[in-house]
Amino acid sequence: MRATARAPARDVESVASVGVSLWVRLLESHNLMLADLRRRLAGDCTMPRFDLLANLEREDGQTLAALSRRMLVTAGNLTGLVDRGERDGVVERRADPADRRLSRVWLTPRGRELVQSLLPAHAAHVSELLGPLDPGERRDLRRLLGKLRDSLVARKEP
Amino acid sequence: MRATARAPARDVESVASVGVSLWVRLLESHNLMLADLRRRLAGDCTMPRFDLLANLEREDGQTLAALSRRMLVTAGNLTGLVDRGERDGVVERRADPADRRLSRVWLTPRGRELVQSLLPAHAAHVSELLGPLDPGERRDLRRLLGKLRDSLVARKEP
Repeated sequence: MRATARAPARDVESVASVGVSLWVRLLESHNLMLADLRRRLAGDCTMPRFDLLANLEREDGQTLAALSRRMLVTAGNLTGLVDRGERDGVVERRADPADRRLSRVWLTPRGRELVQSLLPAHAAHVSELLGPLDPGERRDLRRLLGKLRDSLVARKEP
Repeated sequence: MRATARAPARDVESVASVGVSLWVRLLESHNLMLADLRRRLAGDCTMPRFDLLANLEREDGQTLAALSRRMLVTAGNLTGLVDRGERDGVVERRADPADRRLSRVWLTPRGRELVQSLLPAHAAHVSELLGPLDPGERRDLRRLLGKLRDSLVARKEP
């Protein structure tokens, strides 16, 4: 299908329209993957709780502010999520020893066990959803999204 | 730690861990971009309404089912959003002439004017957020996300 010598329509699109179309694809890919992963998780754990535990599994002892920024939930919603997690014994708040006013959230052994029991199936579902991309495409996409994510994080930091 | 001669860590990562890390980067990029775009939109229009209007601007006359799938909102939330949009005169429901039981949502002239007035600033903000990627990287990322999105859409269709 590639009889075009060069410069298909896409090359003459403005930078702005490439950007919006990229963002729409990112938004739709995110929404479709999240809906699928949420459906499969149902029963074992709610998606917000899984997201909290998986974030702590990647980096334990984060502050509420850091978690709120990463998970895109308001401080109020995160407080409720952490409260319910403490009630159910999967996370705990502990004051930072260097600054007692700062509260950090840690996985309990039970929370770690729960998230580690869910992660293999989660990883398998993610792989299945990404299956239509070949390994080189997955590597490229991972690298490009890493660059984008890092630049977005850097914008927010002082 | 591990003076391995060959195969840097990334090459020996399992397919599953590349997948999860790709998904985390996609999720975080999405969350950071959405939070930024939402902040800038504040006042002119809520993000869910902007999302509805922008979806209809790309493809007018969608069914509630199609919009709900694309926007990742429940049927109940979408109904409320469309109700409020009708009340404010930016969208309207009309029965499909070929199947009167099927209701489609259309932009009103006022809704079209609103979304078209917001889109240029939105496009400029999106471009700014994507600025750290060079044009070739933006094209690659757009293409890879398009392939991913299309494969996710195809999974859901009969």
